[in-house]
Amino acid sequence: MSSPEIERLIVLLAKLPGLGPRSARRTALYLLKHRESVMTPLAKVLNDTAEAVGICTSCGNLDSSEPCGICSDPGRLESQICVVEEVADLWALERAGAFRGRYHVMGGVLSALDGIGPEDLNISELLARAIRPEVTEIILALSVTVDGQTTAHYITERLEGANVSVTRLAHGVPVGGELDYLDDGTISAALKARRPV
Amino acid sequence: MSSPEIERLIVLLAKLPGLGPRSARRTALYLLKHRESVMTPLAKVLNDTAEAVGICTSCGNLDSSEPCGICSDPGRLESQICVVEEVADLWALERAGAFRGRYHVMGGVLSALDGIGPEDLNISELLARAIRPEVTEIILALSVTVDGQTTAHYITERLEGANVSVTRLAHGVPVGGELDYLDDGTISAALKARRPV
Repeated sequence: MSSPEIERLIVLLAKLPGLGPRSARRTALYLLKHRESVMTPLAKVLNDTAEAVGICTSCGNLDSSEPCGICSDPGRLESQICVVEEVADLWALERAGAFRGRYHVMGGVLSALDGIGPEDLNISELLARAIRPEVTEIILALSVTVDGQTTAHYITERLEGANVSVTRLAHGVPVGGELDYLDDGTISAALKARRPV
Repeated sequence: MSSPEIERLIVLLAKLPGLGPRSARRTALYLLKHRESVMTPLAKVLNDTAEAVGICTSCGNLDSSEPCGICSDPGRLESQICVVEEVADLWALERAGAFRGRYHVMGGVLSALDGIGPEDLNISELLARAIRPEVTEIILALSVTVDGQTTAHYITERLEGANVSVTRLAHGVPVGGELDYLDDGTISAALKARRPV
């Protein structure tokens, strides 16, 4: 159909999440129309990022410095470690701007179906961090799904020896959420955890 | 939030059609997870394509050869030229595989609202091709919109001097289309152009 370079570009673009063959073709044409402003800069930043960015050996975050910017920031509390599934969750918490401690990225959750066991996650690294004297609280910010909660249970059990308090995020009505659109589980949880106004 | 490289990557990805800030973040994480298989090859093919692919001076198609593969293919009819708005339309016709002539990419349609006049489109190049003795038919494959049809009218008028027959794609019920979901204009056009079975 078109040149082999464009064909290869479309094949690679179609691998990106949310892009199918049709939107990959559209994107390829967009890139060719915006060569100077988007296409060449994107090629450069892809190369730069692939080379510079690594996984923080302490918390599992993605950053170009080692340890990552959060682990090496002296302004952040060493006493609190927030456990998240993926880097995307860490970014979401950072955007909220409500947490001033450190993170620990698990790299997923336990899943019998997908064959993901404790040895596939960064659990031993978390235990090693949790027994340090400066750490006092582990906050579990895992998904409220069966797998997420199984993982939370497992981590809580493994942390029993360490001298830390283990907490989890509150369940309840999302801010801006309408009751009518909420599932029964969330409504039950919000009712059970009701608080005086 | 994250490293400056990742931030720049997200900003550039969010410029692509169909990607917002949220899906750009998701795509950036996907790329960082698939560094060897997608990220580095994508950077390379972006560079290769930006360097190799140019606009065919004859028809306006995008290709790494000049003239493009279609214009230089001796197996394709020189007598028919199919006029399309954009390269995406040319690709769509090529996928259908029903046309064996040459193309002419207009680069858009006339639009009073967007301030696009005849001098902004490749109309003079089309007229120069149409008066060549080997060309006998110009097929207008423009959008069935007000602007597309205005452009078709304009081209037809300008082609009056040239010794070519000007045709357009048939209007009618799409193959696989259900009458119930079709607009009135299409149904009227299909009825008017009805044919003996």
